[in-house]
Amino acid sequence: MIDPVGDADRLARAEITRIAEPGDPVMGRLIEEYGAVGALAQVRRGVLEPEFIQAELELANAERRRPNLGQLVTGWAGRAVGCAGRAADDLAAGRLLVPGDPGWPSQLNDLGRLRPYGLWLDGEEDLRFACLRSVSIVGARAATAYGTHAAAELSAGLSDRSWSVISGGAYGIDGAAHRGALAGVAPTVVVLACGTDVCYPSAHADLFRAVRERGLVISESPPGVQPTRLRFLVRNRVIAALSRGTVIVQAALRSGALNTASHATALNRQLMAVPGPITSDVSAGCHALIREARATCVTSVPEIIELVGSIGDDLAPTLRGPSYPRDSLNEESKRVLDAVPARTPAGPATIASAAALPLTTTLSCLGGLESAGYILRTPDGWRLKPLPPTPDIHEKSASRS
Amino acid sequence: MIDPVGDADRLARAEITRIAEPGDPVMGRLIEEYGAVGALAQVRRGVLEPEFIQAELELANAERRRPNLGQLVTGWAGRAVGCAGRAADDLAAGRLLVPGDPGWPSQLNDLGRLRPYGLWLDGEEDLRFACLRSVSIVGARAATAYGTHAAAELSAGLSDRSWSVISGGAYGIDGAAHRGALAGVAPTVVVLACGTDVCYPSAHADLFRAVRERGLVISESPPGVQPTRLRFLVRNRVIAALSRGTVIVQAALRSGALNTASHATALNRQLMAVPGPITSDVSAGCHALIREARATCVTSVPEIIELVGSIGDDLAPTLRGPSYPRDSLNEESKRVLDAVPARTPAGPATIASAAALPLTTTLSCLGGLESAGYILRTPDGWRLKPLPPTPDIHEKSASRS
Repeated sequence: MIDPVGDADRLARAEITRIAEPGDPVMGRLIEEYGAVGALAQVRRGVLEPEFIQAELELANAERRRPNLGQLVTGWAGRAVGCAGRAADDLAAGRLLVPGDPGWPSQLNDLGRLRPYGLWLDGEEDLRFACLRSVSIVGARAATAYGTHAAAELSAGLSDRSWSVISGGAYGIDGAAHRGALAGVAPTVVVLACGTDVCYPSAHADLFRAVRERGLVISESPPGVQPTRLRFLVRNRVIAALSRGTVIVQAALRSGALNTASHATALNRQLMAVPGPITSDVSAGCHALIREARATCVTSVPEIIELVGSIGDDLAPTLRGPSYPRDSLNEESKRVLDAVPARTPAGPATIASAAALPLTTTLSCLGGLESAGYILRTPDGWRLKPLPPTPDIHEKSASRS
Repeated sequence: MIDPVGDADRLARAEITRIAEPGDPVMGRLIEEYGAVGALAQVRRGVLEPEFIQAELELANAERRRPNLGQLVTGWAGRAVGCAGRAADDLAAGRLLVPGDPGWPSQLNDLGRLRPYGLWLDGEEDLRFACLRSVSIVGARAATAYGTHAAAELSAGLSDRSWSVISGGAYGIDGAAHRGALAGVAPTVVVLACGTDVCYPSAHADLFRAVRERGLVISESPPGVQPTRLRFLVRNRVIAALSRGTVIVQAALRSGALNTASHATALNRQLMAVPGPITSDVSAGCHALIREARATCVTSVPEIIELVGSIGDDLAPTLRGPSYPRDSLNEESKRVLDAVPARTPAGPATIASAAALPLTTTLSCLGGLESAGYILRTPDGWRLKPLPPTPDIHEKSASRS
């Protein structure tokens, strides 16, 4: 098989994923300027090109950052020594997708110099294809039964409509989103903050196994790397960038899901939030996003698809209540019907007076209403026909998706 | 006691509340043009002034309406005969507040020619005072336990902060709103679609009795008048007009509460909606209002007061999650902390490499983190200190109000 990217570049990027933290802007620019091979050479030397340092410091100054480049490079150099020669083994053991590969999802380029150096893949699915029509569904680890139910229902509905679901594979909402997606037809993608061979959380081993068969488990980190708080946060930008929009199902006011939300907004992706009970702390973050108009309130799969889909062919139907035959009555009949008592029958004159209509008009309306089955004629006058049984007033356990 | 309005006007308006349906625009203009006494005289004659008919027909034509004025006046005349002389008894038995009275809530004048002819009051509270700082809380009769809980909590919180709660006294959300308000200090106002002496629904007899003692039961209809669908709908405009804003707590996609919502919007009052589970049909109307940006999503009393209160002194605090001491760490210490394994201890060199920091920097950070209580030094190296117990992840039964 021909390699459009070049073994050298792929090898260098594989090594860089071991040396630099994912999404490091300095490494991003270094690769932009000198390519992966050139960047790696400077890292190994432990010295960056003077003009790059110059430009980086000016940029940092403009952005009011105070980077310690020396320290950064020393750290990289130390890691480079530690992992010398491992990249070849890594590539032999795993698949590294790099920019320029046919399967590289071009939407990741929206991340600019925060674009991943490469993505380690586990699973047979084509990542680019899997993410063409995709939605991220993320949320709190400490989700409630309502939250996991909503996440699973929405994901299953999206997957049934050939929309891939992308999430972080965590406890709570993430896990429910992947499980729901597996119930549908579209592939689902887990973006990990650790090596794809590191099962975190370990309780999701079976889930990740199922995803590998039906989708992909991917990561910016090479095999064996453990997750850190920093890696969870930078991982979220990949989830947001891969998909057309992000749905926050449950999130406390301080939650990693809100970090993903910020990435989605920064990347001009659709940001959506699912409402919940105001008595639930894990919906407070969603309600804050909706209240501040940062996220759109979504309650069903069609509403989500309308926002992420192509204008025209993915419009959500406007929700309507049931329409009653009453609507077809003319104004006079409506007023007469309104004037007919529910229980104690009333005579035509009383009804005519209550309806503020002449007796003749009232009588003809009463006849029509009786034949239409709205009212009953009794020995004592007219009364309403008992209403049909009222619909179930309790919360349904099936979402409207 | 002097009567600033005049007995004749009050008497005429009392009789008109028996003759015309509340909020009839033709009667509204008739009173505008000729005063209540002049309007009543024409109604009794069964003939309207030609120039009024002329003007009314031109207006109707402009508004694409086809009113049957003859029929309307015939109906009024019929009722006038039926209730001749009752007005005096009604006024002897009850209190009728009319425009021009010191206690008349001037915000009702925003209704223009749909302004009530007068309001029948039952209760000792001053209506104008009671409605100065008031919010309407309305919603579905077929409310769920969550909905009535939310309505009662929000109302109690508003009442505690001296905000009156106005509602329709119906089953479900309305009743819960009044009950919650009674738990606070501010008066609550029931706006009925029937005479204030007609207890509808009858199961709310005790509730209305309590409201009369602590607030007001009011109606556009004179004593003895039964509710009709038409009267429920026109009643809603009074609820919306009396208050600074309307909160919809639960509403199906087709619901009378949405009628009140439309009135609030038409009157430039604040419209707010309380979110709920997406699995609940009685929250679907609220979510639609929020999604279409017709209503603001509110989840707590401060959020409501911020919208209806006076700019400046009623701002809701921005909700924030708990802040962790971690936030006070410097960048290097954070990166080192992120690099310290949760369980299996690691040596300083490993941690330095993971944090991409020099060993010396890492060692000093580790010392600081240990003394700050973040990490533990073990014979095999460093590991995170076990986290404090996680907060209750289940839905709290107390709202954030």
